[in-house]
Amino acid sequence: MRMLINAPETVVADALRGMAAAHPELNVDVENRVIVRRDAPVAGQVGLVSGGGSGHEPLHGGFVGPGMLSAACPGEVFTSPVPDQMLRAATAVDGGAGVLFIVKNYTGDVLNFDMAAELAEDEGIRLAKVLVNDDVAVIDSLFTAGRRGTGATLFVEKIAGAAAEAGAPLDRVEAIARQVNENSRSFGVALSSVTTPAKGTPTFDLPSGELELGIGIHGEPGRERRSTMTSREIADFAVDAVLEDRPPTGPVLVLVNGMGATPLLELYGFNAEVQRVLTQRGVTVARTLVGNYVTSLDMAGCSVTICQADEELLRWWDAPVQTPGLRWGR
Amino acid sequence: MRMLINAPETVVADALRGMAAAHPELNVDVENRVIVRRDAPVAGQVGLVSGGGSGHEPLHGGFVGPGMLSAACPGEVFTSPVPDQMLRAATAVDGGAGVLFIVKNYTGDVLNFDMAAELAEDEGIRLAKVLVNDDVAVIDSLFTAGRRGTGATLFVEKIAGAAAEAGAPLDRVEAIARQVNENSRSFGVALSSVTTPAKGTPTFDLPSGELELGIGIHGEPGRERRSTMTSREIADFAVDAVLEDRPPTGPVLVLVNGMGATPLLELYGFNAEVQRVLTQRGVTVARTLVGNYVTSLDMAGCSVTICQADEELLRWWDAPVQTPGLRWGR
Repeated sequence: MRMLINAPETVVADALRGMAAAHPELNVDVENRVIVRRDAPVAGQVGLVSGGGSGHEPLHGGFVGPGMLSAACPGEVFTSPVPDQMLRAATAVDGGAGVLFIVKNYTGDVLNFDMAAELAEDEGIRLAKVLVNDDVAVIDSLFTAGRRGTGATLFVEKIAGAAAEAGAPLDRVEAIARQVNENSRSFGVALSSVTTPAKGTPTFDLPSGELELGIGIHGEPGRERRSTMTSREIADFAVDAVLEDRPPTGPVLVLVNGMGATPLLELYGFNAEVQRVLTQRGVTVARTLVGNYVTSLDMAGCSVTICQADEELLRWWDAPVQTPGLRWGR
Repeated sequence: MRMLINAPETVVADALRGMAAAHPELNVDVENRVIVRRDAPVAGQVGLVSGGGSGHEPLHGGFVGPGMLSAACPGEVFTSPVPDQMLRAATAVDGGAGVLFIVKNYTGDVLNFDMAAELAEDEGIRLAKVLVNDDVAVIDSLFTAGRRGTGATLFVEKIAGAAAEAGAPLDRVEAIARQVNENSRSFGVALSSVTTPAKGTPTFDLPSGELELGIGIHGEPGRERRSTMTSREIADFAVDAVLEDRPPTGPVLVLVNGMGATPLLELYGFNAEVQRVLTQRGVTVARTLVGNYVTSLDMAGCSVTICQADEELLRWWDAPVQTPGLRWGR
């Protein structure tokens, strides 16, 4: 165990205290585990709420701020937050235009967001939900019926967040979020296992030098094991898996994402190979983002997410965003 | 070995190709290994050039852009760039107001930047140099006579970069850079060793659960080994080492930096403890930055950098910056 923690049971609360100290522009409720943009609720603006287990940072708490999420609810590590958190978040961000829940497709998250949606509606909040399920690696998995939600979550939160910031009504923000998810596909690769604070030893066994192709962001099994592959070979495999599932018919956004412990130097090198495959397959890349955004604690590895984006989606992607984890424009 | 690479000898070139693809706003010369902001040279504006061995990303290439570095020269992994790269960078960014070299204190970097400065002056470029040597852990080390340059490099590049962007003359930009370095102190802790692509096995041996207190960003030895410490204990040790060396007499900037493989969740938790110690010691924190900024490939661990900042330095810190690794404002 090589963790920078006090104790497994205080990891999430400690992190929230540290976020509160570093980000006075956010309203971090440590006790109730809700992170809200400080100016919420914004009158007449659709509120965007997401959340999920901790351990994927900056997702979701690091994506709260103008132009992206209105609030996030962090659960325990790799464990869904509870409906009370989501209800509290919805109440905090509802400016009268309704609230959109962005839910990654894991059984616990789906159930809890469903329950919170009912509670919120009972309190008179107009509510819509979008499920993110972009991971093409496997159908059904540990914790998931259907496809897992992974890297596309960043695209959904950024693009729907920009539309909400611009004043789009709830049904439009929901439709955009749904479109982004439908246009997105991901594939992830692990070069190491992941160790949760509670367990203290690796979640699964991956001998040094081997890879798990199609890994989930909680270490869920993928499609197959291979012995050492080059960055070039991994890019061929991952990009083709994504393109075969949904061949793009127009320009795409690309996320080359690190799982947490893979150096940025390697991620940029991997991006060079991803771009090579896309060019070879005739895909036009409109924008590329490289970095550790949808992580799995200390896992080494990467994922590729590709989202077909028309001019409107690109405009929302380019729109200003001011969050701890993603920030550009004014 | 769990690396996402093609081959050790192509790691840096591959990464530069990937940076070029992801960042059309930069001018990435892969062959000559120089990263330059696209609008360089900016007439009448002091050019800021830094560089060093690769493996510390986003430092330095990820800090090129308006408001920070004008250019960066990446060497091989943990190896100084050569004078030709630095001369090329200086020539590319000299807008007639001169060029400042920002040099981390490692013997190879110092020698090569010295040589490049002479070459640049021979070509009629007005040149100044600032040495960064903020690491209080040890005096003299592997690769270093005197103190190592670590986290303060980010503060120097950001703050001097803002002054240069605002049109400050060379002697003023140099004085500000020097002041930031003099006001800054750092201390780093390793929770794991680091593996370079060329070697393929850990640079030093650190049994699981043990820590190296006072680690360098290339895995150079620190002050001592300890068995497992909590985040709270590490914060006490690191912050006190920094404060004892230079007790602040005014508000400070804080960088809670990850070495590369430590999850953001843990870094934020560590920040909570850093802020607690600072409060207990009566230090006023003006701004805090948390994340992986001055890294050591796949090393797990963290460092704390504290920089006393008066109103002018804070104003430069808050000024807009537009780089891949650090970005805020317009």
